[in-house]
Amino acid sequence: MPITSRAQAHALDAKDPLALLRGRFRVPDGITYLVGHSLGPVSEPALTRLKAHAEGAWAKDMVGAWNSAGWIDLAGRVGDRLAGLIGAEPGSVTVCDSVSVNLFKLVAAALPLAEGAPVIRIESDEFPTDRYIAEGLARTLGVPCEILPPGASDAALIKGGVLIRSAVNYRTSEIADIARTENAARAGGALVIWDLSHATGLIALELGQKGALLATGCTYKYVNGGPGAPAFLYVASGLCDRLQTPIPGWLGHKRPFDFDPAYEAADGVGRFVAGTPPILSLAALDGALDIFEGLDFSHLHEKAQILGDICIRQAENLGLRTLSPGPGKARGGHVSLQHDHGYEIVQALKERGRQADFRAPDTLRFGFSPLILSYTDVWDTMVDLADIMATQLWTAPRFALRAKVT
Amino acid sequence: MPITSRAQAHALDAKDPLALLRGRFRVPDGITYLVGHSLGPVSEPALTRLKAHAEGAWAKDMVGAWNSAGWIDLAGRVGDRLAGLIGAEPGSVTVCDSVSVNLFKLVAAALPLAEGAPVIRIESDEFPTDRYIAEGLARTLGVPCEILPPGASDAALIKGGVLIRSAVNYRTSEIADIARTENAARAGGALVIWDLSHATGLIALELGQKGALLATGCTYKYVNGGPGAPAFLYVASGLCDRLQTPIPGWLGHKRPFDFDPAYEAADGVGRFVAGTPPILSLAALDGALDIFEGLDFSHLHEKAQILGDICIRQAENLGLRTLSPGPGKARGGHVSLQHDHGYEIVQALKERGRQADFRAPDTLRFGFSPLILSYTDVWDTMVDLADIMATQLWTAPRFALRAKVT
Repeated sequence: MPITSRAQAHALDAKDPLALLRGRFRVPDGITYLVGHSLGPVSEPALTRLKAHAEGAWAKDMVGAWNSAGWIDLAGRVGDRLAGLIGAEPGSVTVCDSVSVNLFKLVAAALPLAEGAPVIRIESDEFPTDRYIAEGLARTLGVPCEILPPGASDAALIKGGVLIRSAVNYRTSEIADIARTENAARAGGALVIWDLSHATGLIALELGQKGALLATGCTYKYVNGGPGAPAFLYVASGLCDRLQTPIPGWLGHKRPFDFDPAYEAADGVGRFVAGTPPILSLAALDGALDIFEGLDFSHLHEKAQILGDICIRQAENLGLRTLSPGPGKARGGHVSLQHDHGYEIVQALKERGRQADFRAPDTLRFGFSPLILSYTDVWDTMVDLADIMATQLWTAPRFALRAKVT
Repeated sequence: MPITSRAQAHALDAKDPLALLRGRFRVPDGITYLVGHSLGPVSEPALTRLKAHAEGAWAKDMVGAWNSAGWIDLAGRVGDRLAGLIGAEPGSVTVCDSVSVNLFKLVAAALPLAEGAPVIRIESDEFPTDRYIAEGLARTLGVPCEILPPGASDAALIKGGVLIRSAVNYRTSEIADIARTENAARAGGALVIWDLSHATGLIALELGQKGALLATGCTYKYVNGGPGAPAFLYVASGLCDRLQTPIPGWLGHKRPFDFDPAYEAADGVGRFVAGTPPILSLAALDGALDIFEGLDFSHLHEKAQILGDICIRQAENLGLRTLSPGPGKARGGHVSLQHDHGYEIVQALKERGRQADFRAPDTLRFGFSPLILSYTDVWDTMVDLADIMATQLWTAPRFALRAKVT
């Protein structure tokens, strides 16, 4: 049922169980933060945990905190918590490096196991880093990298090889059908590396149930882990022992403190940890995960869908083009719109405290993080959008000037 | 002149300009921290900067902090500060990833430029991660990895290839002759990747002057950047434009926010940044570098030498074997000793508040971080060591029991 009035939005807020969580985040007064798909806001437990590890463990126990504060296995413990968010078994996720580095490691490790001629495939509209990594690794190994047209990857899986694929497209917010793609991959002997960056913390991913084998994702979007928070890396149990990481660092060794001259990979996903993880950033992420304890992901995603629907309906009324799946259709947490004056519109919204983001040349992105936004917030933002579109403020000279500057 | 009395140690403290800096660190009362070669202690500016970026920038500006708090070029700015510590030109250092990942990137990038048959060389007593990475990359690329006996690398450079070499050996504390090695490398068309982990923040490295071209190092030892603080990566200016990173992430792109389908490497060392750096850990490191403003590295290193000399003289008197260069000889900031009851000795020291570290089966390591230790601290520690050796407490059953547990 579409929301057609502020009263309806308000009624949904009144019975929204997620509304209680909003107070655990520090979002400045007067700001409607619609950029949680880029960088999630800080939460109280993230700050508390960060302080405990910096002013507490590091300051008081110094090197002893590797044991006393559990730094030595923090990556694995935070990994286990993230496993809960993506529907993976405990022990199948660790936290290390960035999505870029993890994609590199996973694709390199998967290539020898994939059937057919060794090849890395990726659709042309994937997140740029994913494509750069695919091409960089292909060049390094001397294997081909095939750039596929959008939507062509399932069909290509029949030929084997390794495919990089996003669970939610960073631009359109379309959701990939993980189970269908994994079925196609199995049929062709291909392996798929999932980039879960725009999905984790929002969608009930159910990786295990859907047969996903390999994945990575960032933790600074809907997981709210903090700027540049370390990424996670998932390998389905059973597969790990057949995978060799190209970057075998000391902390991925079976016995890191033996300082063996010979590398022996740790059992399970821990072998993909290379060097020492950034503990302070990891601690903030650990705290941020407190928010998700006991949360129902189908509820999170449903709320984000309704918020996105409010936006898309209004946008269509106002003549903006929609790049994302329309009302009632499954999509991720953000909605992308296009307008020739997108930059000016985003600036005008910002002046009213509504923060969205803009991607050149003409795309407006609104992120609907269900933990920090109310239905009324989004309704009111769309009222502001209508007002801005009605007055067309960008025709005024100051906006024209700004547009030139970018 | 050897220190032969507590009064002499005390007199040196009285005129030590570094003594003033000690108050800027939080080392718990009653602790003599001799493990700064493993994890440096927290400093007030590190905590202040961390708080400013977490409770300040992230909480207040959220995604806007990429610009308002300068996160977008923080890696480069912290890199420039680190350039000062290693004697490199501004613009030649960035901060990213771990030493493991950076070694991987640098060796892979250097191999096509080295003369002779492609090969990765490393001495057998280098830090384990360096060797694992050399072997992991060699396997990935299908090139040989040659493990050299200790001391054999300079002679091997005549054959070209890429060599990984530590500026200070993690075990013995021996200092490599960077200028001599680089001369040999030039003669043979080889390229050397320096691991500066045990040297940075302690030794006047003068990389530029000594002709070093490629290096990485960690920032959590003498730089006191925090647990798992991101590593740095150095490429001599002029060389960078000929190097391709195997892991081309979005933040190493020339125009990261254009989201170009084609990768175009950033000018200079910034191309080696792959994914988003862990900003909170990076912020703490930035703060930790405040301590080094205006410091004279020859003075830092000289103090560490004198502290190490006090230790080695006493150790030799007490019948411990010394793995490190003896009194008066150049060494890094730590001293390694050996004793069959090394574990029990380190435990007994710890009970007196003297924290050193132990490496199985029999090595005691004392780190002499000159920013936090006084001459008297080290003198008194050695008096305690003598006392422990005299009473031989480890012959008591409880120590025997503990030794079995490890």
